[in-house]
Amino acid sequence: MTQPAPAQPRVTVWHEYRHEHDNPRVAALYPHGMHATLAAGLRAHGLTSVRTATLDEPQHGLTDEVLAQTDVLLWWGHKAHDDVQDDIVEKVVQRVWDGMGLIVLHSAHFSKVFKRLMGTSCDLKWREASDRERLWVVDPSHPIAQGVGEYLEIDQEEMYGEHFDIPAPDELVFVSWFTGGEVFRSGCTFRRGSGKIFYFRPGHETYPTYEHAGVRQVIANAVRWAAPTASAPRAFGESAPLEPLPERV
Amino acid sequence: MTQPAPAQPRVTVWHEYRHEHDNPRVAALYPHGMHATLAAGLRAHGLTSVRTATLDEPQHGLTDEVLAQTDVLLWWGHKAHDDVQDDIVEKVVQRVWDGMGLIVLHSAHFSKVFKRLMGTSCDLKWREASDRERLWVVDPSHPIAQGVGEYLEIDQEEMYGEHFDIPAPDELVFVSWFTGGEVFRSGCTFRRGSGKIFYFRPGHETYPTYEHAGVRQVIANAVRWAAPTASAPRAFGESAPLEPLPERV
Amino acid sequence: MTQPAPAQPRVTVWHEYRHEHDNPRVAALYPHGMHATLAAGLRAHGLTSVRTATLDEPQHGLTDEVLAQTDVLLWWGHKAHDDVQDDIVEKVVQRVWDGMGLIVLHSAHFSKVFKRLMGTSCDLKWREASDRERLWVVDPSHPIAQGVGEYLEIDQEEMYGEHFDIPAPDELVFVSWFTGGEVFRSGCTFRRGSGKIFYFRPGHETYPTYEHAGVRQVIANAVRWAAPTASAPRAFGESAPLEPLPERV
Amino acid sequence: MTQPAPAQPRVTVWHEYRHEHDNPRVAALYPHGMHATLAAGLRAHGLTSVRTATLDEPQHGLTDEVLAQTDVLLWWGHKAHDDVQDDIVEKVVQRVWDGMGLIVLHSAHFSKVFKRLMGTSCDLKWREASDRERLWVVDPSHPIAQGVGEYLEIDQEEMYGEHFDIPAPDELVFVSWFTGGEVFRSGCTFRRGSGKIFYFRPGHETYPTYEHAGVRQVIANAVRWAAPTASAPRAFGESAPLEPLPERV
Repeated sequence: MTQPAPAQPRVTVWHEYRHEHDNPRVAALYPHGMHATLAAGLRAHGLTSVRTATLDEPQHGLTDEVLAQTDVLLWWGHKAHDDVQDDIVEKVVQRVWDGMGLIVLHSAHFSKVFKRLMGTSCDLKWREASDRERLWVVDPSHPIAQGVGEYLEIDQEEMYGEHFDIPAPDELVFVSWFTGGEVFRSGCTFRRGSGKIFYFRPGHETYPTYEHAGVRQVIANAVRWAAPTASAPRAFGESAPLEPLPERV
Repeated sequence: MTQPAPAQPRVTVWHEYRHEHDNPRVAALYPHGMHATLAAGLRAHGLTSVRTATLDEPQHGLTDEVLAQTDVLLWWGHKAHDDVQDDIVEKVVQRVWDGMGLIVLHSAHFSKVFKRLMGTSCDLKWREASDRERLWVVDPSHPIAQGVGEYLEIDQEEMYGEHFDIPAPDELVFVSWFTGGEVFRSGCTFRRGSGKIFYFRPGHETYPTYEHAGVRQVIANAVRWAAPTASAPRAFGESAPLEPLPERV
Repeated sequence: MTQPAPAQPRVTVWHEYRHEHDNPRVAALYPHGMHATLAAGLRAHGLTSVRTATLDEPQHGLTDEVLAQTDVLLWWGHKAHDDVQDDIVEKVVQRVWDGMGLIVLHSAHFSKVFKRLMGTSCDLKWREASDRERLWVVDPSHPIAQGVGEYLEIDQEEMYGEHFDIPAPDELVFVSWFTGGEVFRSGCTFRRGSGKIFYFRPGHETYPTYEHAGVRQVIANAVRWAAPTASAPRAFGESAPLEPLPERV
Repeated sequence: MTQPAPAQPRVTVWHEYRHEHDNPRVAALYPHGMHATLAAGLRAHGLTSVRTATLDEPQHGLTDEVLAQTDVLLWWGHKAHDDVQDDIVEKVVQRVWDGMGLIVLHSAHFSKVFKRLMGTSCDLKWREASDRERLWVVDPSHPIAQGVGEYLEIDQEEMYGEHFDIPAPDELVFVSWFTGGEVFRSGCTFRRGSGKIFYFRPGHETYPTYEHAGVRQVIANAVRWAAPTASAPRAFGESAPLEPLPERV
């Protein structure tokens, strides 16, 4: 039986952390890495148990112990998806099935972990041209959408456009509008096993998106939503009949 | 753009074909293999383009040419899931994304192909005790449910029980009742990419289930439902704005 | 903007309360009415703000003031659906749209309120023959399913069978098995406007079902799940463009 | 049991037909009424059995005989929703439950028929300012989306914006982008009883939208998709057990 998260979900922000090292613009925006900014945003929303892990740490910072102590995992990756070891991917997937929440950010749509959980290509359209983005709330009573008003506006972002090749989401929370004429299902929930998954579109590395108050609010909301809750037993395998079966003649 | 299936969808029945060789009971029930019986059932329902393929053929009988000429693939496996090569699994998955229909039968819930497309463990409960099974139609206007009445009854079958660890299906067509006290979501549809997937529970190898008129009807219905249809373009990658973006000051 | 429920959701148990007056068996089982038993069950689960209302009170006990102070409404009706005034039905529906939770019990599948919110006939099969019922959890991590194990067994109940003519539920939590050979989608969630709705099957008036520990647990869980949460603004009507529209030549 | 539609579904285009009489702009765009233009568009797509009916005919043109002979009903209304008699609304709803397809166009989101089938307010945002609209296909393999490319562009239309207060659609086929900064779920499918329903956004009376080739294509696709198919029996009411119930001690 899944254990519910403690009052304070234990969050691990996982970040590829490569762009900061080879792109000065990214380094200037995120001098301590996007993971540090994301973690700070969560702490500012009252989440007190937040750690980070990055690709180039041993086991990508995701040891069995870290994973076992993680209630909600954030994932940002872009240029180095292939450098993530398959055995770590499998451990993350297993933890999601066991109830760990997963927040998949922006270009992590192409991460091994997300593709593995979706069973689709997760491909999409994109353009780096500083489009304005408006993320409209289409499910106003969803807990992830609270506190941001009718929409959330980001002055400059990379565009992601449909078609987004995912399974039909369980819930569609946000739909994005872009200046250049595109739309995108930019806030989607999924369940796999006992784990809740939220894909959230914004966060290109060359913009200060993770400093944006509304974006921070949504991610903090998503962490609270995705934290594991109690689960009824998930029992599998050979089973006796609940009463002896009638005799066959 | 996906091409629609011809008037007669080209069907390939894939079968593990191992039980027939080491279990006399199975050999007696299916002297030419379950794949031959399944193929005969489809032909009896007017499907004229039906071939078979089995695990121990080269490339499991699923060469690039065979896959390219398959509109709907049936899959039955049980004891040798691990013997299916990963590269063939990936080719099948890619074809599903491109529009090929997939009918997943009984113990193929644990096949690599199905687990890969679902992103979950696909685990369940089971009992080999000749339960009676009744599959109730819960979506009467679904094309897969036509011609079988309010329910479909199988005198003796292996029991599969909840919890069935799948993503919430796009459509739930059948729910099974078993003598021993269990229920099971036994007819479920999913979409992955352009491909339609139908999971159908019945078909344990030690029973003559694939001779059952109602079971045959459902599988033939499912083949017609899963056959590829035309698709709007699924375009991905870098995209120009639909008009020049306004200048930023 | 919907206001979230206070820490203790304010519950109103609405009951037709007619069978108790003309059927001695029901009167013996529920000497103070089914509503009193339901209310006691909620209080035993720590819900402290529980009141009741019945059909034969003025305005069926659902004055504007009562409705305004109700976070979650339970509804049980059977033989007198038509005696519920349409204007009260509309007020209840409006409150659901505004965020009030609604728990629809057993024969209230045919209540005006439920049919109005579903847009379908809500018809089903039934039999009064003391079938045993097992409600299997098919969504183990759903909050409504907590604390009841893998299934919930009721020794004697009225049977309800498929086809149940409802829209495909947003979430399917329980599926019932009955001795006589039927299945039923017996725990279903729906959203209408900002309001959460849970249909829960058990509760025929001639059985002591609402004394059943598991049934009580589920109904208490459902009340907590259905309690209103904060909502993003749901703004409608004429709207200015977010920037002046470009001039048309 | 629902009868499947004949090879040519029998279509009735229902139109309020009031704006044409009091707004010269509408009369100029649609000299024979929007219903005539819609019907012509369907005929141009090979649908040969198309009739029309309007509000001011006796029984709004929807006699029992007409309804019985209609496989798919299109509905356009705007300013006179309240003039539609409730008994006709109920007959239309009953026919949908029995399998008749329903295509709900533009401002008919507020028609009695659509609200009755949805169980929500069906409210939305709007602006008459000749926004450009792009309807993006988000479900490329859906039959309703065929033949229109990746998106459908309408040079000038009324804007409809989120939040659109409908139940979560069974399938989301189109999402609209508007110049002024809004998005809208503009192509949504629902099932009620045996009937398929498609809501399609475009079609404000002061624009020539129903002459638009892509819009005509989508509406013709929708008619073919919504045409009734065979249905398994939908049996309700008292039911015998499938075998005698075991004796109770």
